[in-house]
Amino acid sequence: MKLEGKVVVAQGGGPTAVINQSLAGVVLESRKFSQITKVYGAIHGVAGIVNEDFMDLTQETTHNLEQVAITPSSALLSTRDKPDEKYCKEIFEVFKAHDVRYFFYIGGNDSADTVRIVNEQAERSDYEFRAIHIPKTIDNDLMVNDHTPGFGSAARFVAQAAIGANLDNRALPGVYIGVVMGRHAGFLTASSCIAQKYPDDGPHLIYLPERAFNLERFLGDVQEVYQRLGRCLIIVSEGIQDEQGNPIITTLKQNMEKDAHGNVQLSGTGALGDLLADCVKERLNIKRVRSDTFGYLQRSFFGSVSDVDQHEAREVGEKAAQFALWHNMDGSITIHRTGYYSVNYQLTPLSKVAGKTRHMPDEFINPEGNNVTDAFKFYVRPLLGSGLQSADRLRAPLAPKILKHFSGPEKK
Amino acid sequence: MKLEGKVVVAQGGGPTAVINQSLAGVVLESRKFSQITKVYGAIHGVAGIVNEDFMDLTQETTHNLEQVAITPSSALLSTRDKPDEKYCKEIFEVFKAHDVRYFFYIGGNDSADTVRIVNEQAERSDYEFRAIHIPKTIDNDLMVNDHTPGFGSAARFVAQAAIGANLDNRALPGVYIGVVMGRHAGFLTASSCIAQKYPDDGPHLIYLPERAFNLERFLGDVQEVYQRLGRCLIIVSEGIQDEQGNPIITTLKQNMEKDAHGNVQLSGTGALGDLLADCVKERLNIKRVRSDTFGYLQRSFFGSVSDVDQHEAREVGEKAAQFALWHNMDGSITIHRTGYYSVNYQLTPLSKVAGKTRHMPDEFINPEGNNVTDAFKFYVRPLLGSGLQSADRLRAPLAPKILKHFSGPEKK
Repeated sequence: MKLEGKVVVAQGGGPTAVINQSLAGVVLESRKFSQITKVYGAIHGVAGIVNEDFMDLTQETTHNLEQVAITPSSALLSTRDKPDEKYCKEIFEVFKAHDVRYFFYIGGNDSADTVRIVNEQAERSDYEFRAIHIPKTIDNDLMVNDHTPGFGSAARFVAQAAIGANLDNRALPGVYIGVVMGRHAGFLTASSCIAQKYPDDGPHLIYLPERAFNLERFLGDVQEVYQRLGRCLIIVSEGIQDEQGNPIITTLKQNMEKDAHGNVQLSGTGALGDLLADCVKERLNIKRVRSDTFGYLQRSFFGSVSDVDQHEAREVGEKAAQFALWHNMDGSITIHRTGYYSVNYQLTPLSKVAGKTRHMPDEFINPEGNNVTDAFKFYVRPLLGSGLQSADRLRAPLAPKILKHFSGPEKK
Repeated sequence: MKLEGKVVVAQGGGPTAVINQSLAGVVLESRKFSQITKVYGAIHGVAGIVNEDFMDLTQETTHNLEQVAITPSSALLSTRDKPDEKYCKEIFEVFKAHDVRYFFYIGGNDSADTVRIVNEQAERSDYEFRAIHIPKTIDNDLMVNDHTPGFGSAARFVAQAAIGANLDNRALPGVYIGVVMGRHAGFLTASSCIAQKYPDDGPHLIYLPERAFNLERFLGDVQEVYQRLGRCLIIVSEGIQDEQGNPIITTLKQNMEKDAHGNVQLSGTGALGDLLADCVKERLNIKRVRSDTFGYLQRSFFGSVSDVDQHEAREVGEKAAQFALWHNMDGSITIHRTGYYSVNYQLTPLSKVAGKTRHMPDEFINPEGNNVTDAFKFYVRPLLGSGLQSADRLRAPLAPKILKHFSGPEKK
């Protein structure tokens, strides 16, 4: 028996380069089913639901949906609201008033938790209702999933940035520190390893939130690389912490903004990179030390998209509609790796994904905690997609010297 | 009569995404001429010349040169050395010892000046010698040229970054400040204007080094935009200065590193963006204020290259070899726009380019000094190359409200 009513689709949390692929997947697939009376898009995520700010996507053209699908950042706009029970009750009241019978929320683990609570309320009031969470996060930190849509494209950006930074650092030697997004999980930071092509290529050091960061050990690592190669490329996660779990950035910034969840602001500031650069400059007495914070470009840059990521982001949206509409099931769509490289999608109970955080497994991190392993490279490479550039070097032989042949040490 | 001897090619200053196209152009073209006994590449620019660190590029494969051509950042490595007369004398001694008769230096206005001095020394000692400067700079600040190789690709990166930042800022509203490279010339910062597609798209404000930056006026501008749109995207040049010509960054950073030329360090730090963000946050009482410093990715990112820029960078290298070898002439290769869009290359006396800086002309800047004109958009667009993405929005109608229809103001 078909459950007739409206669909609401919404996008929550930080945007990604492919989040609109999932939106297009949900909308285009849902519109095929006769029991769907309308497909609504909530503007600004859950905030748009409680305000009844709905866009009628049944009246959007297929062609424009395809154009929006390849545009980065949440086309329905987003929100940082994390609804509590009362907020979810309001959502549910709106759903009832509008005869919404299907809810698709594209987001991270907080969004999965919202879906879980709304769904529980529907069950308690015997309201026939399907709710599905569609995974999205550049942090790649959702449980159960092999990886999440949005990560591959962000990782591709980080890899391309690291390739370029390595070449730049080689041309004009010094110490370069790149700061990468990821509060708790180091997957995105680790993806910079793809720049390690020739044996002396950077990143030479990679620091992840999964390992305690010790400033003295860090300085020792940098000195060792710099003495060996005359340069050093370092990529650190914005979320690196000390042994006690304090973010390294707290040791430096006096006035710290905290967000609604009580989290310290890590992104949208160059403070961590600048602090580390100052430390290296002063303590190791190295003149040319530079830092870049890759910032919001990692999730929004228009021009660095993984085709694998695009494809999967589209499919999780489509599968969400199919699970709800063909099978009348609730849950979270999860991605499972089945080969090298192939995937399948499953529907996983929301409680297994909601509000939880996945970290880098130990086998992806080297014993010293300052780089990644080949196992991680094997894991991450297919996610970056096809056509990823590779940096090439000149390899011609050196010419014999004439004037300086017998003289002392060269000047540099 | 053909001048027989060696070629030396070198790369100086900050790398670009297409600087190796010019290298490939010089090497591949020079290798065709029978009077060329060897083609040497100096490693680390002029520093490699005085140290006789030459790579014998006559022994490099054509195929690898083509691979290197599409790799960003100086393949021969670079230098910040700015030779004085004595240094140039050493260069000239090495050239004489190695029977170097052709010198091609790919670089900015400092590199042009080096070529000029070396050439003058050759003339004074009656040494038959051809010296050509090949333009390169992401700042687009070389005199005589309509634009310079390297700029188009960096501008494309900035445009793509601004498109993404605008979408991100729209999804999660607030104030976003992006800091762009360019110590004296605002061309690269101005290129962010390409993100202005829909009428309310950012960047809403663009600040260039060509106009005095006044903090109070800036805050007024931001407040006006924020009140009107509920968000504000700002792109500023790292080189913005106050009425007295002091860099804005000096008003904030106590310990400033100065480079060999006595310049304050502007790149490789997030300080300017963070200062401006703090000002907006405190003075305008806006909660969500973020800043990103686009940093070295602007010149080295592997994956954002303008095909027009690639093509021209290759051609200036080829033309340099042709002017020297067919026509026995010295000078600086300059790019001249002949149509929309077409260019020609000329050989310009070194003294007209060497050591001078071009700025944004007045007609490219709006009267308020906080944005660009359509004339600039017309100028810059073809340089970004083909296939530049365009951001698309959903345009479906809003759905009627049910619960909130007659109630008071909505909550947000």
